[in-house]
Amino acid sequence: MDKLPIVLDLTGTFVFALSGALAGTKRGLDLFGVMVLSFAAGNSGGITRDLLIGAVPPGAVGDWRYLGVSLVAGLVTFYFSSLIVRMSNAVLVFDAAGLALFAVAGSSKALSFGLNPVMATVLGMVTGIGGGIVRDVLLAEIPTVLRADLYAVAALAAAAIVVVGYLLQLPDALVTAVALASCFLLRVMAIKRG
Amino acid sequence: MDKLPIVLDLTGTFVFALSGALAGTKRGLDLFGVMVLSFAAGNSGGITRDLLIGAVPPGAVGDWRYLGVSLVAGLVTFYFSSLIVRMSNAVLVFDAAGLALFAVAGSSKALSFGLNPVMATVLGMVTGIGGGIVRDVLLAEIPTVLRADLYAVAALAAAAIVVVGYLLQLPDALVTAVALASCFLLRVMAIKRG
Amino acid sequence: MDKLPIVLDLTGTFVFALSGALAGTKRGLDLFGVMVLSFAAGNSGGITRDLLIGAVPPGAVGDWRYLGVSLVAGLVTFYFSSLIVRMSNAVLVFDAAGLALFAVAGSSKALSFGLNPVMATVLGMVTGIGGGIVRDVLLAEIPTVLRADLYAVAALAAAAIVVVGYLLQLPDALVTAVALASCFLLRVMAIKRG
Repeated sequence: MDKLPIVLDLTGTFVFALSGALAGTKRGLDLFGVMVLSFAAGNSGGITRDLLIGAVPPGAVGDWRYLGVSLVAGLVTFYFSSLIVRMSNAVLVFDAAGLALFAVAGSSKALSFGLNPVMATVLGMVTGIGGGIVRDVLLAEIPTVLRADLYAVAALAAAAIVVVGYLLQLPDALVTAVALASCFLLRVMAIKRG
Repeated sequence: MDKLPIVLDLTGTFVFALSGALAGTKRGLDLFGVMVLSFAAGNSGGITRDLLIGAVPPGAVGDWRYLGVSLVAGLVTFYFSSLIVRMSNAVLVFDAAGLALFAVAGSSKALSFGLNPVMATVLGMVTGIGGGIVRDVLLAEIPTVLRADLYAVAALAAAAIVVVGYLLQLPDALVTAVALASCFLLRVMAIKRG
Repeated sequence: MDKLPIVLDLTGTFVFALSGALAGTKRGLDLFGVMVLSFAAGNSGGITRDLLIGAVPPGAVGDWRYLGVSLVAGLVTFYFSSLIVRMSNAVLVFDAAGLALFAVAGSSKALSFGLNPVMATVLGMVTGIGGGIVRDVLLAEIPTVLRADLYAVAALAAAAIVVVGYLLQLPDALVTAVALASCFLLRVMAIKRG
């Protein structure tokens, strides 16, 4: 399960980086500031998880591709922000996908580093929501996720499914698919309801 | 000294988690946000210390009971916040006890990981005040402890007593008792003076 | 190159600590708050780098001299802040020197811990700008460096020169000198232009 294709992991990073870049653009940051927010939003969740479980250097530090996709997201948003804003519904859907991917990947990695089931679930959620928290702290705002609990609950659900599947020794592929779908659908439903 | 009963450590976590939950409730966060603040306030000091001394995974990540007491504190505060507010003097006294426990436990653990006396003292203080700092940063406020130095000085005093006692090879139980009492009394006096 | 004399490293810490202390004094913090900001501004960049590359305990935690120079900077600024404000041009020049030293030391250390060239460059920049970011977050402000990209670009340039020199196996002393001079001159020019 810790072989969750790197493509999916990088996709999640890209989408979260878009959210960071958008937030920075709205606050009038310049290009460099926008790129820092991209990287922070896309990678802080995974870096926090890796520091806490002792996976050093963290994936996003040891592998330059995480930086690469984050910077591309930052550049695209900075120069085509009107396009990204117009696509904001699509971005929300991608964000739901990113959240699902990160929660699943995060809890899997925590399990593979020997964490107990409860804390592996929590770390899956941290992986999913950490980027948004750091993004908001850097903008001197109270993190949105603290005000919108369904967001975190969706991540928690996916992480819990992964951990329960692991405890019951269910097939990885099935568990991953169910976890991803649950988180994604919970988020999409929440978005539709506004 | 690093066998400081887990009950006391969890008590400190619970009390600090209450302070986080109260701050979150006052700012109108929903249940999930309040629970995140509970966990952050109760555990950030210890997690920071553990990352800095290389104790990975940190106690609060490897042992689910820290999460457990934090969530209970969050739930109680969210649903009975008027009760907690009415008991606010009691909460302040518990907070003084939590600060003392964390400063003592923090400096002991830093010493046992081979840090030099000066930095072990500092890490004792960090263990005590780190939770409140992260709580306030998450609420986009300047940390109260930066404005109220007696708070940190009380933690520093307890940590220094532990470290000096260690250097002079005084009996653990005595040193611990004196350190706890000093920090607690300094805080209680400061509270009484307003 | 990881033998960059400790004197230079501590000088960088001192200058950055001054910037933290000044910011704290301006916001009306008391002595303890000013000293926390001194330490945070002088050492957060290096501590972050060390946690990310797995150098535990971080230099600024294992060696009390980093704390020592930070506290001296805090004390001096708190009691003679009008002097420091009057010398603010000198402080800016020292800050440029500190940035250059930290970027060079940071990328060297990351390389010596086996990071790939791209991420070693980024970590050099993080070492240089991390302290200022934490300083501003503690003051509940959007970090200045996110709004002033030339600052980070100067650090990035120095780090990139170190990494390219390492890849081309050029002599350490030459590479270090060129990297320091480039960052320093870029910053001084930016300051002169206002």
